[in-house]
Amino acid sequence: MWFLWSFSDPRNPSIFRRSPFKCRRRFRSATLSIHRSIVAKVQVQVPLESMAVSYFHIVQSGRGFHKGNLSYANCSSKGRRTHRLVFASIHTSDPKVDSLLDSVKWDNKGLAVAIAQNVDTGAILMQGFANREAVATTLSSRKATFYSRSRSTLWTKGETSNNFINVHDVFLDCDRDSIIYLGKPDGPTCHTGAETCYYTSVFDLLKQKEDEGNKLALTSLYALESTISQRKTELTGENEKPSWTKRLLLNDQLLCSKIREEANELCQTLENNEDKSRTASEMADVLYHAMVLLAQKDVKIEDVLQVLRLRFSQSGIEEKRSRVSQKPSDH
Amino acid sequence: MWFLWSFSDPRNPSIFRRSPFKCRRRFRSATLSIHRSIVAKVQVQVPLESMAVSYFHIVQSGRGFHKGNLSYANCSSKGRRTHRLVFASIHTSDPKVDSLLDSVKWDNKGLAVAIAQNVDTGAILMQGFANREAVATTLSSRKATFYSRSRSTLWTKGETSNNFINVHDVFLDCDRDSIIYLGKPDGPTCHTGAETCYYTSVFDLLKQKEDEGNKLALTSLYALESTISQRKTELTGENEKPSWTKRLLLNDQLLCSKIREEANELCQTLENNEDKSRTASEMADVLYHAMVLLAQKDVKIEDVLQVLRLRFSQSGIEEKRSRVSQKPSDH
Repeated sequence: MWFLWSFSDPRNPSIFRRSPFKCRRRFRSATLSIHRSIVAKVQVQVPLESMAVSYFHIVQSGRGFHKGNLSYANCSSKGRRTHRLVFASIHTSDPKVDSLLDSVKWDNKGLAVAIAQNVDTGAILMQGFANREAVATTLSSRKATFYSRSRSTLWTKGETSNNFINVHDVFLDCDRDSIIYLGKPDGPTCHTGAETCYYTSVFDLLKQKEDEGNKLALTSLYALESTISQRKTELTGENEKPSWTKRLLLNDQLLCSKIREEANELCQTLENNEDKSRTASEMADVLYHAMVLLAQKDVKIEDVLQVLRLRFSQSGIEEKRSRVSQKPSDH
Repeated sequence: MWFLWSFSDPRNPSIFRRSPFKCRRRFRSATLSIHRSIVAKVQVQVPLESMAVSYFHIVQSGRGFHKGNLSYANCSSKGRRTHRLVFASIHTSDPKVDSLLDSVKWDNKGLAVAIAQNVDTGAILMQGFANREAVATTLSSRKATFYSRSRSTLWTKGETSNNFINVHDVFLDCDRDSIIYLGKPDGPTCHTGAETCYYTSVFDLLKQKEDEGNKLALTSLYALESTISQRKTELTGENEKPSWTKRLLLNDQLLCSKIREEANELCQTLENNEDKSRTASEMADVLYHAMVLLAQKDVKIEDVLQVLRLRFSQSGIEEKRSRVSQKPSDH
């Protein structure tokens, strides 16, 4: 099974569109006219009713070449331009991918909900819909790819903004009708420039706080980071008695002595066999004070988690430590 | 505007259903027969085409009483049972809620995607769909509530399992057609007993690792926690040279000395004005070693983040520290 994936003008790479076609009927064979200048004879193999995007089977591929699961066809042109049709096989070289895509419970439009989540912070970046083609593309390209219902076309987040979401893993839910693209964004995901698309708090709106500016949907760790960072911006020109966070930000010596003190107290909960709630509380203290230091150094907790992920995915942390402990002088 | 929210048998509270009706046509006035034993005359006020669930306007409420935005009507019964219809007003006492719900871009079935996310860990717990009624219910009850497309009924996650998701805030995306319920789950969210519904890794499936057991969609911090915890279960009966994590788990003294050492090194990056990457790396060390201590004490990082959230939402952390710093002997 093949579908028309894109067409491009080899002399003008900026003209490059993905799946710009919508077929509303079941074709056995059809001649499609594309942008007045390209003609391709295609045969549809699958019931279109169940598809969000029409799939095509190439009958006459014209002159062209194959590369992986992509087939490039140079097409006859009525005008002065030569165009290239790019067909992609959804039945990739890997039948396991096909069988996996078969197991997804696509809705009656051939879609499933796809949620992009930041692998380090857990922030929900955006939510879209994916069809079979979008998931297949995501799995092969490792870039979060969706199906735009309004434009009836496949789109890879970042194809215009360059803020791709680099997918590390894809998860299906228990019903197999909802998908998580767990990945690392190259930059802000929202077209507004916001880090994520979820910056409108309903409870703030109800309290008529809209004018106070947007508030990202932040989980506990990042809400704390955000407040510490806010305190830092408020440091200058303040006359009131500063908060504890501000005092720490104004006094490196105090901050460092607190971090050492809290780390010590965390250890004591183990050494003195204190109860679990005490450990949680002391760890919270360590985390909070260390995060003030991060803010002081302009380091994001996301960067720290990325360090852990990279070390960890290479089993590096354990390896490095093993090495270090054998040669303590290195550390 | 009122809609039929549920009906119940006062003598048998287990018979309690929510919005069990589906109207496919626009009624001006209709007599509905419910389970052969209840008759209620209702008038529909809104175009049903755009609604996932039919809304009703009570014309004759019969005997009954009002409580908040709920109206209870004892209905005439043909059989031996007396039933009670419960009507809820979607136009709550707060017109701001109505105007907010008006601003959501419901799809042609009156639905929007609703994603439940753990406020502390960031884990995506589940994804469902919500209609106007479901969001209104979530806002008032603070329990994540969805609209079940298969059962054509409103359902609050936890109504059978008691594993409610206690909603702290609700976020809309930039297009206002996707919703996050940011909340704290009372227990596992998935009906399978899994913590979240997303425990099927596509990449694992493709590597035919399905038999190795399920893997939750974990972000970096929790993936690390999960591995440390895995190391702990592997401690007994092992003959190979243990990994660094295992060595730490087997030796409290080593673990505590490493935590103190890493906290000290983190401070030195500030004191010695070292570069940002060094700070991130040292913070990663602190976090990793402290998390081994948490595992040793059977404390979840989620509990730590909950402590931070609770302190923080009460501005407690800054207050407490202020207090402590004034009376160092307390600490």
